[in-house]
Amino acid sequence: MTHWKLTLSYDGTGFHGWQVQPGRPTVQGALADALFQLSAERVLPQGSGRTDAGVHALGQVASFALAAPIPAANLLRALNRALPASIRILTAEAVPPSFHARHSALRKTYEYRIFERRPPDGESDPDAELAERICSPFLAPYVWDCRWPLDLAAMRSAAATLLGTHDFTSFAASDPDLTLRAADSTQSTPQPPTQPNPVKTLFRSELLRERGLLLYRVTGSGFLHHMVRNLVGTLVEIGRGSLAPDDMPRILAGKDRTAAGPTAPPQGLFLVCVEYPEPAEPTP
Amino acid sequence: MTHWKLTLSYDGTGFHGWQVQPGRPTVQGALADALFQLSAERVLPQGSGRTDAGVHALGQVASFALAAPIPAANLLRALNRALPASIRILTAEAVPPSFHARHSALRKTYEYRIFERRPPDGESDPDAELAERICSPFLAPYVWDCRWPLDLAAMRSAAATLLGTHDFTSFAASDPDLTLRAADSTQSTPQPPTQPNPVKTLFRSELLRERGLLLYRVTGSGFLHHMVRNLVGTLVEIGRGSLAPDDMPRILAGKDRTAAGPTAPPQGLFLVCVEYPEPAEPTP
Repeated sequence: MTHWKLTLSYDGTGFHGWQVQPGRPTVQGALADALFQLSAERVLPQGSGRTDAGVHALGQVASFALAAPIPAANLLRALNRALPASIRILTAEAVPPSFHARHSALRKTYEYRIFERRPPDGESDPDAELAERICSPFLAPYVWDCRWPLDLAAMRSAAATLLGTHDFTSFAASDPDLTLRAADSTQSTPQPPTQPNPVKTLFRSELLRERGLLLYRVTGSGFLHHMVRNLVGTLVEIGRGSLAPDDMPRILAGKDRTAAGPTAPPQGLFLVCVEYPEPAEPTP
Repeated sequence: MTHWKLTLSYDGTGFHGWQVQPGRPTVQGALADALFQLSAERVLPQGSGRTDAGVHALGQVASFALAAPIPAANLLRALNRALPASIRILTAEAVPPSFHARHSALRKTYEYRIFERRPPDGESDPDAELAERICSPFLAPYVWDCRWPLDLAAMRSAAATLLGTHDFTSFAASDPDLTLRAADSTQSTPQPPTQPNPVKTLFRSELLRERGLLLYRVTGSGFLHHMVRNLVGTLVEIGRGSLAPDDMPRILAGKDRTAAGPTAPPQGLFLVCVEYPEPAEPTP
């Protein structure tokens, strides 16, 4: 068996998320089909984590093992020929059997993209509603088209309080979907269907205006289901003045989903990259 | 009645083209539905021309008349609220009754976007096939992902021979679809279902490499059905060496569709803008 690590990018618009589901197009399902097509082996690639319907990836990582001896360059080209254009394999490399896309991950980075209809300069203009920017149809599937003027300083102040190690229960989806999580582990070490550990460490949590967009970039040891979208929904509440920056530590401490803001829409979210120990761990 | 001119942009990926079709999402149909929603008037907006399924627009123009007195800014905002995010109205202005998006048009500009898997530098490298660039999933719906190395100088030479006034019969779709054309005229001056005049004038016909893409930009007095895509398909045949630049005048003169190259795929094509006489013609 050769153990493989793929990095891949996908436009999540047309998929019902990463996780394979009967009768629905998913990224994991498309990848399994492509692998079967070229190797006649039925494998279920393991992702570094699930992405929800509509969420995109610039650098998702998947791992699996194949019996067929295929050179890495051929595997990459054959997969890209077999896959739809909305999924592209960027790299393919043989890894030790101990490598697992999810279990071996050290840090993950996400970016959330917000389109601001109200340009920052117009925030104080009472007639600004008539001067709304129009979100291009080519941008709409990749941003949150946000109608409110946003106070960047307040959002930055709140984002900074998220750095470090916290219990992020307030930002976890209330439906942790344990059945699906258990199903995702069929080809790897079985996992007990317990609640995931809500304590995570954020190494980066920052907002910047770039290319006409407001971007939230966050790097963490791991993320709970819907966590980035719930953080962004709360940061936007703070940006529009419905919550204050000082509310963020209170919401974290409350360990209560209802204290936080709404879940930001999926299409603004990009899984940017997943980091692993370097060099690759030796075979156990 | 107020006569209106809209400029609009749309991502053609999810539409069966401009032209209204029963039971299928089209841009004209979505616009008619949005106008009905806000005015309770059933009008069929006339486009500057049809775009095919998968073809995009940065500056399509549509015209129609409404009895309801609506300020232009309100019409624009209400339409953008009613329309899907894949269609955005960029401007709305009242025009004289003589204005018609198709009949009044003077010049139209299209851009066709080609992704070159083989970077220009690698053209002479026999191992270049292994070094193919990978077309991002976020770019794929908006380009022709072209596998052949392309000789830009040959394509430019051929593109220049298209300038001026020619009979473009060799580049017209063999199915001119006269029934649909007649149906498109229901709200305007009825047009006899004759073959469109194949003689057109091109004011611009040029290729350039920009933002990592090969772009074909063409401005003309008018375009036959599939004309830009057939020109691009032929230019790519020349770029890959299957035809010579000198073949282009011969193909034009032959007035024979089968002499030209294949029809380039729709998703690389953008209707950029439509030009009208300035200032607007007085009411007749």
